[in-house]
Amino acid sequence: MLFEPDLSTPYLREAARLRDAFAVDAVAHDQAGGRPLDQLRLLKDSGLLRLTLPRAFGGEGQPWSTALRVGREFAKADGSLGHLFGYHCSSQHAAHVRGSPRQAEALYRASAEGNWFWANNANSAARSLLGKWQGDHWLLNGSKPFTSGSHIADRVHITWIDEDSGRTLDATIPADRAGWRALDDWDAFGQRQTGSGACRYENVRVEAEEVFERTGPADAAYRTLTPFIQQSVLLNVFLGTAQGALLAARDYTVNESRPWVHSGVERHVDDPWVKRVYGDLYTRTLAATALADQALEVLDRVWEKGDALTAAERGEASITLAAANAFAGNTALDVTSKIFEVTGARSTARGLGLDRFWRNVRTHTLHNPEEYKTRNVGYWFLTGEPPVPSGIQ
Amino acid sequence: MLFEPDLSTPYLREAARLRDAFAVDAVAHDQAGGRPLDQLRLLKDSGLLRLTLPRAFGGEGQPWSTALRVGREFAKADGSLGHLFGYHCSSQHAAHVRGSPRQAEALYRASAEGNWFWANNANSAARSLLGKWQGDHWLLNGSKPFTSGSHIADRVHITWIDEDSGRTLDATIPADRAGWRALDDWDAFGQRQTGSGACRYENVRVEAEEVFERTGPADAAYRTLTPFIQQSVLLNVFLGTAQGALLAARDYTVNESRPWVHSGVERHVDDPWVKRVYGDLYTRTLAATALADQALEVLDRVWEKGDALTAAERGEASITLAAANAFAGNTALDVTSKIFEVTGARSTARGLGLDRFWRNVRTHTLHNPEEYKTRNVGYWFLTGEPPVPSGIQ
Amino acid sequence: MLFEPDLSTPYLREAARLRDAFAVDAVAHDQAGGRPLDQLRLLKDSGLLRLTLPRAFGGEGQPWSTALRVGREFAKADGSLGHLFGYHCSSQHAAHVRGSPRQAEALYRASAEGNWFWANNANSAARSLLGKWQGDHWLLNGSKPFTSGSHIADRVHITWIDEDSGRTLDATIPADRAGWRALDDWDAFGQRQTGSGACRYENVRVEAEEVFERTGPADAAYRTLTPFIQQSVLLNVFLGTAQGALLAARDYTVNESRPWVHSGVERHVDDPWVKRVYGDLYTRTLAATALADQALEVLDRVWEKGDALTAAERGEASITLAAANAFAGNTALDVTSKIFEVTGARSTARGLGLDRFWRNVRTHTLHNPEEYKTRNVGYWFLTGEPPVPSGIQ
Amino acid sequence: MLFEPDLSTPYLREAARLRDAFAVDAVAHDQAGGRPLDQLRLLKDSGLLRLTLPRAFGGEGQPWSTALRVGREFAKADGSLGHLFGYHCSSQHAAHVRGSPRQAEALYRASAEGNWFWANNANSAARSLLGKWQGDHWLLNGSKPFTSGSHIADRVHITWIDEDSGRTLDATIPADRAGWRALDDWDAFGQRQTGSGACRYENVRVEAEEVFERTGPADAAYRTLTPFIQQSVLLNVFLGTAQGALLAARDYTVNESRPWVHSGVERHVDDPWVKRVYGDLYTRTLAATALADQALEVLDRVWEKGDALTAAERGEASITLAAANAFAGNTALDVTSKIFEVTGARSTARGLGLDRFWRNVRTHTLHNPEEYKTRNVGYWFLTGEPPVPSGIQ
Repeated sequence: MLFEPDLSTPYLREAARLRDAFAVDAVAHDQAGGRPLDQLRLLKDSGLLRLTLPRAFGGEGQPWSTALRVGREFAKADGSLGHLFGYHCSSQHAAHVRGSPRQAEALYRASAEGNWFWANNANSAARSLLGKWQGDHWLLNGSKPFTSGSHIADRVHITWIDEDSGRTLDATIPADRAGWRALDDWDAFGQRQTGSGACRYENVRVEAEEVFERTGPADAAYRTLTPFIQQSVLLNVFLGTAQGALLAARDYTVNESRPWVHSGVERHVDDPWVKRVYGDLYTRTLAATALADQALEVLDRVWEKGDALTAAERGEASITLAAANAFAGNTALDVTSKIFEVTGARSTARGLGLDRFWRNVRTHTLHNPEEYKTRNVGYWFLTGEPPVPSGIQ
Repeated sequence: MLFEPDLSTPYLREAARLRDAFAVDAVAHDQAGGRPLDQLRLLKDSGLLRLTLPRAFGGEGQPWSTALRVGREFAKADGSLGHLFGYHCSSQHAAHVRGSPRQAEALYRASAEGNWFWANNANSAARSLLGKWQGDHWLLNGSKPFTSGSHIADRVHITWIDEDSGRTLDATIPADRAGWRALDDWDAFGQRQTGSGACRYENVRVEAEEVFERTGPADAAYRTLTPFIQQSVLLNVFLGTAQGALLAARDYTVNESRPWVHSGVERHVDDPWVKRVYGDLYTRTLAATALADQALEVLDRVWEKGDALTAAERGEASITLAAANAFAGNTALDVTSKIFEVTGARSTARGLGLDRFWRNVRTHTLHNPEEYKTRNVGYWFLTGEPPVPSGIQ
Repeated sequence: MLFEPDLSTPYLREAARLRDAFAVDAVAHDQAGGRPLDQLRLLKDSGLLRLTLPRAFGGEGQPWSTALRVGREFAKADGSLGHLFGYHCSSQHAAHVRGSPRQAEALYRASAEGNWFWANNANSAARSLLGKWQGDHWLLNGSKPFTSGSHIADRVHITWIDEDSGRTLDATIPADRAGWRALDDWDAFGQRQTGSGACRYENVRVEAEEVFERTGPADAAYRTLTPFIQQSVLLNVFLGTAQGALLAARDYTVNESRPWVHSGVERHVDDPWVKRVYGDLYTRTLAATALADQALEVLDRVWEKGDALTAAERGEASITLAAANAFAGNTALDVTSKIFEVTGARSTARGLGLDRFWRNVRTHTLHNPEEYKTRNVGYWFLTGEPPVPSGIQ
Repeated sequence: MLFEPDLSTPYLREAARLRDAFAVDAVAHDQAGGRPLDQLRLLKDSGLLRLTLPRAFGGEGQPWSTALRVGREFAKADGSLGHLFGYHCSSQHAAHVRGSPRQAEALYRASAEGNWFWANNANSAARSLLGKWQGDHWLLNGSKPFTSGSHIADRVHITWIDEDSGRTLDATIPADRAGWRALDDWDAFGQRQTGSGACRYENVRVEAEEVFERTGPADAAYRTLTPFIQQSVLLNVFLGTAQGALLAARDYTVNESRPWVHSGVERHVDDPWVKRVYGDLYTRTLAATALADQALEVLDRVWEKGDALTAAERGEASITLAAANAFAGNTALDVTSKIFEVTGARSTARGLGLDRFWRNVRTHTLHNPEEYKTRNVGYWFLTGEPPVPSGIQ
């Protein structure tokens, strides 16, 4: 199959199987939004939630490139699942990036054993969640926006601001911690099952030992890799969505579309226009794929460096990721809108759900604007200076 | 207001008033789909359903350009209403194009008096509706696809094929004619209230005198103007949708959007990126408007020629209309997708309904592919030969 | 002919005649660059140099729209001539905008009588030309860049900075004034005969009475209209170049191009690809023309207002002009590059000179970047605030 | 350096050295056109003319990917040299594809020993060169178009049609063969030193043993690989030109361009517009590079298969090559035109020669239209059927 991942890798074979399972009722799930509980069960059964955990602690020890290709597969059928899986993997590694080796190990083991699904309450620079030290624990009050996955999570990576010092702290809590609640209020027109709404905190208690203790140099480059993973999640969801849209459109064009009345051809696929549109969209998606695959190699390489990663290496890698992300997003936007020209008037039936691909990409590309990524790339091309690391770049 | 029509014309003032009324619950109507009965009542009360009927027979005697500008206004808030209004006007004039002056006059008078809303069962070359002559009347059986407006119509323009001779015939029937039924099965992701699904015919009786009798030369150029009006309806709906989307986005950007965290500006509108995107989209929409306005002038001119219209004049006019239509459609597709880049992540909330503009245009532009219009324009530019008149060009 | 101006206007008829005369050796002139002396003679003989001078003072009293349409015609064959003619008209009116009525009248009369060709030494904010008051005259030393037309001018509009006060002053001088010299050093790859290089000033004497005396309120809006005319010159040169390129390509495609070996058609014009490309380029050029024609109406209207022009009217007009300029430039860049796809490999022969259209537009669009015009349009769309008048906007 | 090839490979290091040498007077050579004799001498001295010849016969035994990367480097400075080098390598292998192993070996040895530069008189399906069998040799009369490299060649691969049987035959002849003459009449506006004009044949004698004798199955897939190499030459020239243009523009922007007067920044590179344009062009060039590199891998793989290559493998490879070629060409056209927006008005000086990149790509992309490549890709995506092998696909 076109765009098929390397099926000799068992994890990608499993991902392809899940993708096909998700595809069965993806249209209905898109319309319903809400909690993807059926899909979560399949995910848990598959073992893929442990994919990137170290083998020593009960995981599969796979690199980021494999995890992101799994997300890419899911996104072919359902962008929400691609996003949720990617952010799960990212949050699962929060302790590695921000905590101590001891904490990371403990959480890896518990996560593998419990087959936890993780969510992210860590984004946003907003002062919307404050904590107060109580002598032996913290009490948190406030809220967090854009908390993808919280509506179905077992475990949550959280950050808050110490209302006394203004410092930011990190921890993880179980989803049944008293006072914490996912409002499940996400109702965007795309990525509808990601639960990317808000979480509410009312006197949420966090124990001292749950707080991440950074060891080693605070400014180590590898501590700034979280946005790399998140950008990679997004870019592979963009790419998977473009690929999925193109494949779904092809099936419709080949099996359902009729030639235009003035076309003079018997099969729609023989119209030079139809050939050209598909040729152009496929070519651009192929280019986006080639660039995305390069970005995955870069990501694996910088992650593996760990402590040894230099700021310069981090900077150069950030450019490759930004370029791949911007290109994948732009390609996906174009592909998911233009396919209709060659599927035709009847392909707009809601029951077919072909518009979900555009809605997903349109929604998802707004989380981190392409404009700023492209500016960073351009400035680096001109001056050699990469962007200053931050929570989003 | 930007893109505001000429408010010194009472009909356009009224159109703007209705547009604002439609806007109030346009998002809810888009989600519900179905029958726009509230809006139909407003339309009937406004008198605009009689807009293009001759003054002598109870109408307002306005040219097509006015009617199409009314549709353009409606489309700023609700593309379905723009489409329904335009096709209503077109169907109301079916007897003028295909019947005799006597029939046209009678239908004009009755339509004005009854304040009828018209729908179209006349498109499609498909042999899906057959009639059999019964000595003094016809009996029709079969169905018609893409019958916009039938779900709320008082009167319907119909065409069928004589199963004996293969000839196509036209008539109009009241919507309560026994055996005729709008299935109300339209469920596309855009233009959701247009009722563009199928109508079913079970032994529908059409009287001999209801059948259009063509008088005068059968090949008169003016008898081929129906696709001009329909193309103009579409192009003005595309344009109104682009304008409406741009205005809605502007309101959101100005009032709600926050500057990007790395932008260095205090107001989102001060970001050079935001200025540029709006500047570009506005400029292109302005160009589409200028071309659409030229097309309206051309349409009025060829319509007024009546019998005197030559094939060459018809041909040249068809090129202007095709160009304006293609350009408006392409512009609207771009505008309705790109606005989100500058409204931002929170603007994807379903409650805001900003995606309905793209869904409407994406659905609506597929009725008559831009590719073939553009080819016609190009071939004429190269050779001077316009397209052969047909039901769609 | 397509894109033909209104030939019932004698001035445009004459412009079309000259355009055809310029076309004869436009390719050779493009290769040679330098001074277009043959064309200047034709221009002088035609009387068009007096086109916009008031009738009362020996001119033809035509509005700007006519002059700019003349330039548009010239640009179809030779972009340099379109540019030179437009800047000639603009400079001829310098006294109207910056001097007193008495000065304007005197210069109008002399210009009409002498059939002067004017050039511009007035642009640039650079402090490259300084003047020193000598009690009864000025002495100027330094240089001016981008002085289009100076290499063939009879009369030159100049500006300089008073080295004592820092004030900017204006005057006009004859081209044979001692110490003034056009270096004729323009050697760009486009607009090759415009002489847009530098002028050198060595102790150039300017008499007191030659200096423009502004009368009336210094901040009158009409005193800021020079950039409107210059932007209009550019936009009509862009547009004429696009039209000329498209017509030249059409001739080549129809008469010379062979169908592609795998096309299956006998004539290149029957290839759906060829139809589409021409259809698309023609449609966009048509949209640019419609927008340019609107801008010309706006320009005539604001110019005619004279003293009565308000800042708000000036502001709104500036947006229409900026939008038309940006759109024409972008369209012309696309048209002049894409035509080759459908003229084919042999159409790149230097002897045909089809590349001069792209070289002209590419060079000419850089004088005033589209980015900033588009930002101005966008900011105005968002906030209602037009750009602050300056020498270039 | 950005886009720098793998300098640990000695051949690419040498290519980079030559590239820099070519760059010194590339602008002057572009203006002069004609015969690149200086560059040919450098090429001969470098040993790179033997790059792809088997080691056993005196060559360097490098794969196509290395040769095409060498051409890519050359094209950064001078598109003509990239093209000439690529076609040299392709013609050098003509006997491998169309002759017998014995002939191939003999020509390899002679070519390596003589350090021959090869040219191509083999393209075109035109019946413009006819041969007549004289009992023991052929006599050829007529001409060949588009014979790149013939003006400087030592050896020429030729094809002709037997005027009796209509069969096509191949041979190679030395460039000093009596009666053969390169007219050196190429005068396109781009790729000016490629000598892609016509060759004239007047009673050219070709010995029986010079005629290629095909051994083995005539329909072997590997016998149809010549267009693969030629497409790869073109795509790497497109890509190298885009990369070279971008690097040259960067140098100009960083060192020469001034910020726009209304930009509010002190350095041009700090303008968000400049960052964005470079970011976008770099990102797309990066995507084109990733796709081109994939295509090179595919080319090496299918070439190495030799006799074992199946039609299906050939078909799939042809799609990757076509996609990479189309994408590289489109990217290069965009890059070479848009760079001027951010280099600015003064960068159009002929002495800088920045326009040569666009002229080269515009000329070169017309040899094999992108439209048909894209249609082939699209049809394959839809149906799985690759294009029928021919001299150009």
